[in-house]
Amino acid sequence: MLIHSSSQLLTLAGGPQRGKKLGALGIIEKGAVVVRDEKIVAVGATDELKNAYPDEPTLDAGGGVLMPGFVDPHTHLIWAGDRANEFEMKMSGMEYLDILAAGGGIISTVKATRTASIEMLIAQTRPRLLKMFANGTTTAEAKTGYGLQTSTELRLLKALLALDDESPLDLAITFLGAHAIAPEYKDNPQGYVDEVVNTMLPTLKEWWQTHAPRLPLPFVDVFCETGAFSREQSRQVLVKAKDLGFPLKIHADEFDNIGGAALAAELGAASADHLVKTSDADILALAKSDTVAVSLPCTPFGLAEKDYTPAKKIIAADALFALATDCNPGTSWNESMQFVIALACRYMKLTPAQAIAATTINSAHAIRRADTIGSIEVGKQADMLILSVTDYRQLGYRYGTNLVKQVIKRGHVYSVDVGYYRTA
Amino acid sequence: MLIHSSSQLLTLAGGPQRGKKLGALGIIEKGAVVVRDEKIVAVGATDELKNAYPDEPTLDAGGGVLMPGFVDPHTHLIWAGDRANEFEMKMSGMEYLDILAAGGGIISTVKATRTASIEMLIAQTRPRLLKMFANGTTTAEAKTGYGLQTSTELRLLKALLALDDESPLDLAITFLGAHAIAPEYKDNPQGYVDEVVNTMLPTLKEWWQTHAPRLPLPFVDVFCETGAFSREQSRQVLVKAKDLGFPLKIHADEFDNIGGAALAAELGAASADHLVKTSDADILALAKSDTVAVSLPCTPFGLAEKDYTPAKKIIAADALFALATDCNPGTSWNESMQFVIALACRYMKLTPAQAIAATTINSAHAIRRADTIGSIEVGKQADMLILSVTDYRQLGYRYGTNLVKQVIKRGHVYSVDVGYYRTA
Repeated sequence: MLIHSSSQLLTLAGGPQRGKKLGALGIIEKGAVVVRDEKIVAVGATDELKNAYPDEPTLDAGGGVLMPGFVDPHTHLIWAGDRANEFEMKMSGMEYLDILAAGGGIISTVKATRTASIEMLIAQTRPRLLKMFANGTTTAEAKTGYGLQTSTELRLLKALLALDDESPLDLAITFLGAHAIAPEYKDNPQGYVDEVVNTMLPTLKEWWQTHAPRLPLPFVDVFCETGAFSREQSRQVLVKAKDLGFPLKIHADEFDNIGGAALAAELGAASADHLVKTSDADILALAKSDTVAVSLPCTPFGLAEKDYTPAKKIIAADALFALATDCNPGTSWNESMQFVIALACRYMKLTPAQAIAATTINSAHAIRRADTIGSIEVGKQADMLILSVTDYRQLGYRYGTNLVKQVIKRGHVYSVDVGYYRTA
Repeated sequence: MLIHSSSQLLTLAGGPQRGKKLGALGIIEKGAVVVRDEKIVAVGATDELKNAYPDEPTLDAGGGVLMPGFVDPHTHLIWAGDRANEFEMKMSGMEYLDILAAGGGIISTVKATRTASIEMLIAQTRPRLLKMFANGTTTAEAKTGYGLQTSTELRLLKALLALDDESPLDLAITFLGAHAIAPEYKDNPQGYVDEVVNTMLPTLKEWWQTHAPRLPLPFVDVFCETGAFSREQSRQVLVKAKDLGFPLKIHADEFDNIGGAALAAELGAASADHLVKTSDADILALAKSDTVAVSLPCTPFGLAEKDYTPAKKIIAADALFALATDCNPGTSWNESMQFVIALACRYMKLTPAQAIAATTINSAHAIRRADTIGSIEVGKQADMLILSVTDYRQLGYRYGTNLVKQVIKRGHVYSVDVGYYRTA
C-alpha cells in the first residue's frame, strides 16, 4: 500500500532528539510511504514513490498531515471504578485529608480493583484503550499498581496481556507494585518495601517467564515521593529489579524533590517521570544520562495546580524530553496525547514541533522502542496517523477535540473520525 | 420513541437557574422520555412510561446518562483560514505587537474571510459545526464579524443560514459588524461606528426580512473593550439596534473594565459575555437584570492566561450564569462544550452539576430559547444526549476526549462515538 498526502509528511527520522535538537520533524512536502507486511519499505516524495511502485494500491490522505502514531509512555491504564465523586468534593473546596476520611484517594481505587474480577477489569479498561487509539495513540505504556498485593498485581498483568492481545494498540507493560504503601502495611512501610523486594519481584519474574515467555521483561517502576517510597526505599526496589534483569522507570519529583531523578540516571532507568520539582543538579544528572525526562502536564492541569515540569530548562540542559498522559482515575483521566500537546505548548511553552517530537520518537525511547516505532523510516513498524488538518501546527493550537482521521497500525487502516451518522 | 436509561436522566426542568439555585439537575434515576414529532411528550420513570406507552418503539441508552443537548451561546463559528502560524510564534515567546507586524491578529482573519467565496466559507466552517455536533452541541450561537464591511458581513449571514439549513445542529445567528474597527477606518474609529449605525444595521434589517422572513431577527453584538469599541460607541451601536428591533448581546470586560456589563443590563441585552475583569458594581447590575453572564473559559486557557471569570462571585450575587466555547481562530479554537465544563470546574471551581446547568438551560436562556430547548420537559424540542458514562459527574472529571455516545436532535438519533473500525 502506498499512502500519500498532498500536505505534510512528518517523518521524525533520525532517532531520539536530545535537548535543543528537539522539534526536528523531518518534513517531506507532498510525501508518501510504502507499507508491506506491517512495515515501512519506502519513504519519499509522492511522485518518486509512485514511479518506483507503479502497481501499489494507494491510500490518499488528501490534504491531511501524515505522521507517526503517538506513543504514550506513562499511563495507569488499568483500574476498577472511578473517583468522580471525589472530584466533585475537591471542586466544592473539600480538603484532601477530609476526602481521604470520606473514603477517597488512591486506596479507594485499590479497594475497587482488588475486588474486581479479571473480566470486569478488562471490560472497564477496554473503553479507555479504545479512546486512546481513536485519539491517535498506537503504542501505550500501561502500569499495574492498584493491587498492592501479589495476587491482584498478577491479575492486572494478566488483564493487560489480554488487552494487548485483543487490541490493535500495542502495550508496553510496567509492574508498579510500589505505587503506594499497601493499606496492610500502613504502620510499617518498610515491611511493604521488603515484601516488594523479597516476594513480589521474584514472583513477577517467574510468572512472566511462564505467562509471557516470548515478550521481553516488563518495566519495574516505583513512586519515589514523600509519603510514598523514600529515595532509599526506591533504590532498594530498583536495585533488586535491575539485579533480576528488569528495565527500570521511576515516578519522581511530583510534589517534592527527594532525588528520584538522579537515582534514575544513576541506575540507567529508561525514564524518570513527573519532574515538577526537580532540582538543577538532578536535571544535570538526567542530561548526562540516557534516561528520558517524561513530563505529565495533565496532572497539574487535572488538579488545577500552577506548577508544571520546567521543560525548557530540561531541554536547555540537553536532556532527553518526552510527554505522556499519566491517564489515571485520581488526578488525570485523559486518554488523548493531542490534549497533552495542547497543554505542553501553553504551560511549558513548547512549540508544536517540539511537542510532536516529545510524543512520538522521544516517547518511544522512554519505553525503549525507538528502534521500531516513533518515526516514519524504512524498516520500522507501519504505525501512522492521517490527521484531518493540513498543517502540523494545528496540533496544540486547537484542543478539546480529536484531529485524527485515520489510524494506521501495523499497516492496517482504521477510521476513527466518522463525524456522525443518523441511525433513526 | 421511548428512550430509557438504567442510570441517570437529567431533566434540568424548571427554567433558567438564577444564582445560588444553579446546579439543580432534576435527576430521575432509571428515567425515560417519550418523543413524537420532534417533541418531548412524556418524561418519567421507565417503568411508568413503559406501562403508559406499551406499543412505543424503544431506544435503550443502557447505563448511559440521558441529558439535554448542550447549547453553546457564544461562537465565532464562521471564518476562513487559520492562525496556527501565529500560535507557534506566540508559544515561541514573540510579543503580540511583533505578531501584528508579522501580519497576525484578527485583521489577518478578516483579510482571508473577505477574499473567500461563500462556497469556501461554508466548506471551511462545516467541519467545525460537525465537531460541535459530535461533541454534543445541539444548538449553537454563531456570529459574523470577520467581514467588517457590509458585503462580507452579509455573505457570512448567508453562509450561516445555509449551514443552519443543511445541518442537524440549530444555529442562533448574531450580527457582529462591530467586532473590531475595520482596517479602512484605522485612523477614524468613530467613522466605522457611524457606518455600522447608519448603514450596516438598517441594511441588515432589510436584508434579513428579505432572506430569512420566517426567522426572528438575529442578535446584534458589539465588542466593548479598550482598543475596540468604547462604552459610548457600544451604546450607539446597541441603542440603534434596539430601536430597529434587534435583540442584543455584548462582549465585555475581557481585558479591561469599561462598563460593558452594566450597559448590557441597562439595555436589556440577552447576555454579556467574557466578564473577566467585571467590577462588583457591574456584577450587581447584572444580578438585578435578566441579562445572562456568559463566561468563556477557553479564552484564558487558549492564551495561557491566569485570570478567569469570577464565576462564584457572579453566582453568589444571584445573577444568571452560563458557559460557552467562544470558538474562534485567534484565542480559542475548541468546539467542545465538554471541555468548557472541564475548565469551569477546575479554574472557576464550579461543581459538575453547576457547569451542566450553565451549558444547557442557562445557556439556552442566553440565546433566549429556554422556552423550547435546554431541558427535558414535556412540550420541548427533543434535543438530548446519551453519554457513554453512567454518572453525570464524569463530565468535568474526565477531559480531552468525547463522552457523548449518541446525539438526539429533534427526535432523530445520531451515533457519534463509534470507537473505530478497520477499513483496510
